[in-house]
Amino acid sequence: MKTTPILRDLVDQVINEFQITDFAKATIREVKAIAATVEKLSGMEFIKMEMGVPGLPPSAIGVEAEIQALQHGIASLYPDINGLPELKKEASRFIKAFINVDVSSEGCVPVTGSMQGTFASFLTCSQCNPQKDTILFIDPGFPVQKQQLVVMGQKYETFDVYHYRGEKLRDKLESYLKKGNISAIIYSNPNNPSWVCLKEEELRIIGALATQYDVIVLEDLAYFAMDFRQDLGKPFQPPYQPTVAHYTDYYILLISGSKAFSYAGQRIGVSCISDRLYHRKYDGLTQRYGGGTFGSVFIHRVLYALSSGTSHSAQYALAAMLKAACDGKYHFLDEVKVYGERARRLKEIFLRHDFYLVYDNDLGEPIADGFYFTIGYPGMTSGELAKELMYYGVSAISLVTTGSDQQGLRACTSFIQDHQYALLDERMAAFAQEHPIQASGKV
Amino acid sequence: MKTTPILRDLVDQVINEFQITDFAKATIREVKAIAATVEKLSGMEFIKMEMGVPGLPPSAIGVEAEIQALQHGIASLYPDINGLPELKKEASRFIKAFINVDVSSEGCVPVTGSMQGTFASFLTCSQCNPQKDTILFIDPGFPVQKQQLVVMGQKYETFDVYHYRGEKLRDKLESYLKKGNISAIIYSNPNNPSWVCLKEEELRIIGALATQYDVIVLEDLAYFAMDFRQDLGKPFQPPYQPTVAHYTDYYILLISGSKAFSYAGQRIGVSCISDRLYHRKYDGLTQRYGGGTFGSVFIHRVLYALSSGTSHSAQYALAAMLKAACDGKYHFLDEVKVYGERARRLKEIFLRHDFYLVYDNDLGEPIADGFYFTIGYPGMTSGELAKELMYYGVSAISLVTTGSDQQGLRACTSFIQDHQYALLDERMAAFAQEHPIQASGKV
Repeated sequence: MKTTPILRDLVDQVINEFQITDFAKATIREVKAIAATVEKLSGMEFIKMEMGVPGLPPSAIGVEAEIQALQHGIASLYPDINGLPELKKEASRFIKAFINVDVSSEGCVPVTGSMQGTFASFLTCSQCNPQKDTILFIDPGFPVQKQQLVVMGQKYETFDVYHYRGEKLRDKLESYLKKGNISAIIYSNPNNPSWVCLKEEELRIIGALATQYDVIVLEDLAYFAMDFRQDLGKPFQPPYQPTVAHYTDYYILLISGSKAFSYAGQRIGVSCISDRLYHRKYDGLTQRYGGGTFGSVFIHRVLYALSSGTSHSAQYALAAMLKAACDGKYHFLDEVKVYGERARRLKEIFLRHDFYLVYDNDLGEPIADGFYFTIGYPGMTSGELAKELMYYGVSAISLVTTGSDQQGLRACTSFIQDHQYALLDERMAAFAQEHPIQASGKV
Repeated sequence: MKTTPILRDLVDQVINEFQITDFAKATIREVKAIAATVEKLSGMEFIKMEMGVPGLPPSAIGVEAEIQALQHGIASLYPDINGLPELKKEASRFIKAFINVDVSSEGCVPVTGSMQGTFASFLTCSQCNPQKDTILFIDPGFPVQKQQLVVMGQKYETFDVYHYRGEKLRDKLESYLKKGNISAIIYSNPNNPSWVCLKEEELRIIGALATQYDVIVLEDLAYFAMDFRQDLGKPFQPPYQPTVAHYTDYYILLISGSKAFSYAGQRIGVSCISDRLYHRKYDGLTQRYGGGTFGSVFIHRVLYALSSGTSHSAQYALAAMLKAACDGKYHFLDEVKVYGERARRLKEIFLRHDFYLVYDNDLGEPIADGFYFTIGYPGMTSGELAKELMYYGVSAISLVTTGSDQQGLRACTSFIQDHQYALLDERMAAFAQEHPIQASGKV
């Protein structure tokens, strides 16, 4: 066995110190800590692809608006629990401008990051009907969302969409819904980690079945409009960000400031509740709270109990960013397109050195270049590949932790620096040479 | 019946429109909305005492630090889920400086306001031991904390401390604890709404019984050091803010930026977990999360799931305020002492016009002047008094909603303006004249 860029023994020793027996199950935080430790001990630079955090400066428009709000003394004033009126208005307008959907400003609710939006959504959906006590994940997905359900003691079911694209999605989805225990369906689009983008025909299936079985759809738009195959960034002009909202009346659109606006630090997002859902009464909610609609319970009971709203100044920031985007003065996608460009270059290097893309197409169309992509190596499991790449100074998380049944890794483009492409090329050339593919080895 | 400052019919009509049949149960938000509506329709100014929100400008030190952090680009960076190291360090130091208690910085965790701190505390305490499924409130208290338990589906019990001050607290408290179903005890000190301040002998009783029955104490210090009878504002010098931390090892101190620093808008606080509690393992937590201590579950599971941390810039603000307070450069109590001064003047007016203080002493010592006080009127119930005062342009909430068994109202000093003392005096004179006290009427 040849020498790897980083000594195998050193990596193994650090992994052992973290008491990780199965590297396929290592969390993002663990992989990050191991990579940082090995980097420090070896003096060898790591190409870090495990974290899904923005690597760009924050939107200047947001920062400026936030500073101005602070200078006006808003730090002492509790934000309106319904949300800053200006932000609610702009969120409603943003949805019209970039998704071509009408959601009243009333239902557009600021949250402490989409994480809080998802938590509040899971909680409220779970309380609508005691028979419907389970959330359904169209996976792969963001592992922490399942952790949220563990924290609140709710059940979930999940399937990997890999084998169920297009029309095949219908029967698979219905096999869960017809049992009658599903309160809500959640998926992200574009998808974390696979960067799969569901097509209109798939969204239509989800919407139709949700309506038929009276299930709420939670559409996680954390990577809003970041399908760079088309220009989704022109306000009030097609093409628009695809959405299930065209196909069902009961949904929540979870929009995050973290990735599209590089505003993760301030924990700000908006959860946008459809008009029909907002005003609907559910027996379970009436029983627990003595009244109220889905929307009023979501805001005045759940969000109020969770944190009494979210940072007042950050609400001004998001309002300003959304407004500028709607006015055509802030081309937010231009600032984040670099992720797509990085993905293109990184994929090219991996593919040239015998890797393959795990989730590689949307109904035949090559997958978009974006924030994440997924890679596999012939004949290697997720855990083997994740660990083996550590010897080559490349860190990424296994797909196992994301609800995927496929063998491979999630790679995130956000921390890649310009000088690292050459480094990756060199290291992956060595990797390929050291791991020759047998004719039969291709999985 | 004489004419009241505001037409009875108008007030009654607005109350009816809000569909409130029992004014004693009207929420803060309802009383606020009714007062605002009547004020608009009648053109008569209301003296608003229902809201418990800061009425002062935010701490300049906080605002400046927050703006500086934003200028340095922190808006794009996820805050460390453990909390900004500088804030953790200063919180630990602040507790030493003003409470004379040692809590490691590790256990001092930024939260999206103490509301999130309480939610996370309730949730984590409730998961430690399946037998202990109930939170005990030493009431009166902040009504929303019980709403938090309704949202998460947890049980609570409660008693009004009014008749159980001093040594009497022991038997009463033990009557609950000995049943074995209590996971945690919560109270606020100074108390919202009664402004009762528990004495050392009472805190000793709570601590000793908590230890004996292995119960966690949640000490809500939302009105930190605002017992203005003594100067609690000199760092590292007695007298200190009293605390149960001297009498038990398992506690969480909930410190809020909202009132002491007038920083409610940014939703920032610190929940400080005692060292012993932080490092303790509980079977219930191990079972649910596969491992971890109380502290690591509180941070990496619960707070992570709730919102992935709290506003990055607000953490810089709180760090700067705590540091300046510890350094003796920022006399935060000086800025909020005005609440005490307002309470003194308001109480004098009410007492002169035949009102009485409901919670009027701490083991014989007259209650402090602070953010809140409680008033009753001979022969009138909470609901009658709250409604009757609306005709005189004075809005306040009934004690019924706070878990108190006494008849009376909570009055908050935060929105009182200088010109309103004369107005109140005049209106309460009219009130007293219209409501003569019978010799037998004094309750």
